[in-house]
Amino acid sequence: MSRIAFVNGDYLPYEKSKVHIEDRGYQFADGVYEVFAVIENKLADYDAHISRLMRSLSELDMKLPYSKRSIFFHISNIVKQNLISNGLVYLQISRGVASRDFKFPYNTKSSLIIIGKCIPVDHYNDSFNKGIKVSTTRDLRWKRVDIKSLNLLAPVLAKQAAHEKNCQESWLIDDDNFITEGSSSNAWIYRNGTLITRPISNSILNGITRSTLIKGLKKRKIKFKEDKFNLDDIKEASEAFITSATQHVMPVVKINNIKIGNGLPGPKAQDFRAAYMESLKLTEL
Amino acid sequence: MSRIAFVNGDYLPYEKSKVHIEDRGYQFADGVYEVFAVIENKLADYDAHISRLMRSLSELDMKLPYSKRSIFFHISNIVKQNLISNGLVYLQISRGVASRDFKFPYNTKSSLIIIGKCIPVDHYNDSFNKGIKVSTTRDLRWKRVDIKSLNLLAPVLAKQAAHEKNCQESWLIDDDNFITEGSSSNAWIYRNGTLITRPISNSILNGITRSTLIKGLKKRKIKFKEDKFNLDDIKEASEAFITSATQHVMPVVKINNIKIGNGLPGPKAQDFRAAYMESLKLTEL
Repeated sequence: MSRIAFVNGDYLPYEKSKVHIEDRGYQFADGVYEVFAVIENKLADYDAHISRLMRSLSELDMKLPYSKRSIFFHISNIVKQNLISNGLVYLQISRGVASRDFKFPYNTKSSLIIIGKCIPVDHYNDSFNKGIKVSTTRDLRWKRVDIKSLNLLAPVLAKQAAHEKNCQESWLIDDDNFITEGSSSNAWIYRNGTLITRPISNSILNGITRSTLIKGLKKRKIKFKEDKFNLDDIKEASEAFITSATQHVMPVVKINNIKIGNGLPGPKAQDFRAAYMESLKLTEL
Repeated sequence: MSRIAFVNGDYLPYEKSKVHIEDRGYQFADGVYEVFAVIENKLADYDAHISRLMRSLSELDMKLPYSKRSIFFHISNIVKQNLISNGLVYLQISRGVASRDFKFPYNTKSSLIIIGKCIPVDHYNDSFNKGIKVSTTRDLRWKRVDIKSLNLLAPVLAKQAAHEKNCQESWLIDDDNFITEGSSSNAWIYRNGTLITRPISNSILNGITRSTLIKGLKKRKIKFKEDKFNLDDIKEASEAFITSATQHVMPVVKINNIKIGNGLPGPKAQDFRAAYMESLKLTEL
C-alpha cells in the first residue's frame, strides 16, 4: 500500500505530495512543526504537543490554518491510513505561499502538511539496551530555539558532525561552555544521586518528553534538579540520557571520549523510562 | 504570458512549480541561495555570485547539481522566457528529497529551483530619491550567516518588525551593541568624511554589492574603513546606506528616531551609487 500524506487539504500519495516553490517554509524556514509519537495506535501527550504548537505559532504571529478538531481528525486519518501502530506523525505549518519578500505576506493562508511513519518497537528497544553515543559541538543556533521552528540548519550540521564520529546525537555547547541540549533532544545527566537537566529558557526547546519525565520523577520522588551542566560535570556523571518524542528516555553511554558509568545503560535507566511511561498521556484515535 | 520557473530540470508554469514535501529545504532550511540582479537584460556580477554560491555549498558539504555551464544556461532561459529587462533571478539549491532525518541523506541529488522577477527601474529610482527608513532590533540569527543559507527566520522577523514601524529595513544589533548588518543587506555609515562598514566575519554576509562598491571607492579614492559601528556612531553620521543585489546602493535617511543628515539622501549618495555602477561587471545573456 502506498503511503498517504496530508497536504493543504488533500490526501495524496506520498510521492505526489508537493508544495509550491514559493512556500515560505521552502525559502525562509518560516514555519513550525511538531513530532507526535504513536505508541500502540495511540498518540503520546497529544494535548501538550498541540499546546506547544499553538505557542510556536503565536510567537511567530501565525495561526492554525484549520480548527483543532480538524487537525486531530487529519492526524488520526494519517495514522490509520498508513497503518501506524508504532511510529510518529510529523506535522508542519508554514506561513504559506507568497512572492518572495522577507516581511510577512498579507492575508496568506498557512500551509499544513502531515506525514506518518512506522518505527518498529524493536528499533527503540535495541537502542535502549545498548545506549547511544554522543559527541559535542558548538551551539550555532539562533536565539529563539524555544520556538519549534523550521530554522534547523545548525542542528542538521550538529547531527551530521555526530554521525561522522559514529555517534547518534550531538550535545550543543553554549558560549559559557555549558550544554544547552541535544540537536533534536533534551540532555540529562545523573550525578551524585540527582538527575539534572537545563532549565527552560530561550536557549532550549521546552521538550514535552522532558516535562512528562519531570512529572514522573516527582511522582516517584526521584531527586531532580534543573541546572546548567558542562563537560566537567559530565565526567562526574554515573549515567546520562536524552529525551525526545521518538527516543522517549534513551540512555547515553559515551560523550566524546568520556565513558559514562561502565559504558552500558546504568541501573537507573529502567526507572527513568518507567517514570516517563507511567506519566505519559495516551490519546485514542 | 504565464511566468515560467525552473524546477529540478523542468521549465514549469509558475503556478505548477512544486517540490516534494520532504525536500530538505522545506523541513530543515537545508540549502543555499543567490539573488542575481538583472540590469538592462544583463546579469550583475554574475561570476562573484556564482563564486559565493560555490562557497556556501562547500561550507554545507553540498555540490552543484548541474555544471556551471548548465546553471548559466538555465538562468539565461529564465531571464529571457520571463522577459526580464530589469529585475532579479532567485536561485535556490537544497540538499534534496529524503525521509526526514537531521543528518545528511546518503547519495541524494540536490534540488535546484530558479525564479525570475521583473522590477521596474522606476521602483528603484523612487526609493533612491526618497531614501529609506531603518529600525534596529537584536540580531537573533545563527552563528554562520556568512553562509547564504535558507536559515532565514530571524531576518524574516527582523524585516517584519521594521515594516510594522513603517521602515523598509532592519539593522541588527549584536551582543556588544554593534550593528552587524541589515536583515537582507549590508549596512554603511558616512562619518567624518569616511565611509564605514563592518569587516567580513561569520557575523555578516560577504555582500557582492558590498565588495563591488569597495572596489569603486578605491578607484575614486573615496575614504573608506572596515570597522564596527554602533548607535552612537550613527548619531554622528552625515549619511547612511544599505547595499544589496536588488537595492544596489540605497540611501538611509532615518534610523530609529535618528534623522540622518537633513532627512533626505545626502550629497554623497550619487557618488557612491556611481562608484558601484562603474565597478559592476555585467554579463550578457
